Amino acid sequence: MEAELIALLRRRIAPHPLVRLGPGDDAAVLRLAGAEECVVTVDLLMDHVDFELAEVDPRRVGRKALAVNLSDLAAMASPPLAGVVALALPRRGGMDLAVALYDGLLPLAERYDLPIAGGDTNSWDGPLVIGITLLGKVTARGPLCRSGARPGDRIVVTGSFGGSLLGRHLDFEPRLAEALLLAERYRLHAGIDVSDGLSLDLAHLAEESRCGILVDLPSVPVADDARRLAEQRADGSTALDHALADGEDFELILAVPPDEARRMLADQPLGVPLTEIGEVIAEPGLWQRLDAGRRIPLLPRGYQHELR
Amino acid sequence: MEAELIALLRRRIAPHPLVRLGPGDDAAVLRLAGAEECVVTVDLLMDHVDFELAEVDPRRVGRKALAVNLSDLAAMASPPLAGVVALALPRRGGMDLAVALYDGLLPLAERYDLPIAGGDTNSWDGPLVIGITLLGKVTARGPLCRSGARPGDRIVVTGSFGGSLLGRHLDFEPRLAEALLLAERYRLHAGIDVSDGLSLDLAHLAEESRCGILVDLPSVPVADDARRLAEQRADGSTALDHALADGEDFELILAVPPDEARRMLADQPLGVPLTEIGEVIAEPGLWQRLDAGRRIPLLPRGYQHELR
Repeated sequence: MEAELIALLRRRIAPHPLVRLGPGDDAAVLRLAGAEECVVTVDLLMDHVDFELAEVDPRRVGRKALAVNLSDLAAMASPPLAGVVALALPRRGGMDLAVALYDGLLPLAERYDLPIAGGDTNSWDGPLVIGITLLGKVTARGPLCRSGARPGDRIVVTGSFGGSLLGRHLDFEPRLAEALLLAERYRLHAGIDVSDGLSLDLAHLAEESRCGILVDLPSVPVADDARRLAEQRADGSTALDHALADGEDFELILAVPPDEARRMLADQPLGVPLTEIGEVIAEPGLWQRLDAGRRIPLLPRGYQHELR
Repeated sequence: MEAELIALLRRRIAPHPLVRLGPGDDAAVLRLAGAEECVVTVDLLMDHVDFELAEVDPRRVGRKALAVNLSDLAAMASPPLAGVVALALPRRGGMDLAVALYDGLLPLAERYDLPIAGGDTNSWDGPLVIGITLLGKVTARGPLCRSGARPGDRIVVTGSFGGSLLGRHLDFEPRLAEALLLAERYRLHAGIDVSDGLSLDLAHLAEESRCGILVDLPSVPVADDARRLAEQRADGSTALDHALADGEDFELILAVPPDEARRMLADQPLGVPLTEIGEVIAEPGLWQRLDAGRRIPLLPRGYQHELR
């Protein structure tokens, strides 16, 4: 069946100038054209954790598996180079499922001119697992890292947050074109995409930059989904709580020097809004801004893989 | 817990000149130093399919997950560049398991000077899944592919075959140093590593090269494990049947021009024996050599992922 799927992929996937050798050999061979550096990222998505296969169109699952990786490239401001797809398929219906997963991910790959260069297809008695590894290019400006934020930088975010569980976590647009445009036009110090949760990913950025982040909570853009989820749940959580903790928004958090942030916010060069929600400070940790220059700690919340 | 594991990896993994940015960011950044091409390969290993976690030391599982990928690089005659590790860990005992998996794979990585540049760590209620993606360099001789065999080439294999299930499938040595040495000293036309089964992988090589392969069965090196397994099973399968069909030997099959093959076989430049087991012919398919220039079809057998 792996042979069958490879034959199908060879028909479906158009030749790409960056792929010298595609699916079907022991490894793929990519053209790098004298590149000095590349970026590499991997994400594994699992049934019952990242999606419920029984409840959704598998094409949305395939699309999400690629989109989360494209979001990682966005966080690095790295143009995509190539990807490989690893599947652990349930035996029953596995072939149809594989085809549907590719039906979902290939149009997104094509939109970003990303060749799928190879992969590994397996079957088992367990739930679906899909793991995608992407390589990205490093532009002359270098990769955007989590560690580059400096005190005084403004914290700017794309889009709005919260309630992704209502469907956006499957169908979100990775902010890759947006990240590349911003990195091209403005000086960015640091970036991260929001997968775990806005407050938790702000804390990650602060920690890697050995700084703190002071958040102005009223300026956090709250998604309509966050309001809907707060109403549905009626468990005392506010829409803002959902915006801070839900995760899987796959929006960008950027640390930007103040003058650049001003320019960027005035320009609003993207189809999606850019909003300033805080600033980088020297004192480590995540903080909530109060009146009159006071601040209190803000608890980072979001998704963490629990192990016992 | 992912943070905990990243902290541990950062302590465990020594800085490597090829890794500009290692575990902990949205992606790793690798130094390519102006490379024209690279190789990329991925393998996903799953509990109850590729190992039985309940029955083996998890360090052997971690080691195998890396070794099968190194074997793919061996098949391409590609020196390793860097790797990323994706884990889906059972929640109970997941942290200890992750540490043991890395304890198993890191010494093998170090032996091949392969940096683990990043990864993705998840927990779930399913069985262990470990997926490793490796990047490899392309030498001046270019990658060794499945498609390069030409009629008249001799089929040369490393080592012996069959019965890997008795333990060798976990503890095998990937033939990477051997492949690099052979590619350096001899002109090789094509290569593949034996994961699915000797006869099935011979058929893969023949198919990708649009040729046939004529196998001289009495010259196939049969492993002692194949004899032991044939005795244990007592189901009518011979040791040679096991050698042809068991798979997971992770030895190399090479297609070599006749003069180079003669030289290579006389030199025996490796610590492991090189054996000629057949030749490439124009007529497609896999064939068994009989007396007096006659031949009959040889059925390719081995491991195939079954899907319904």
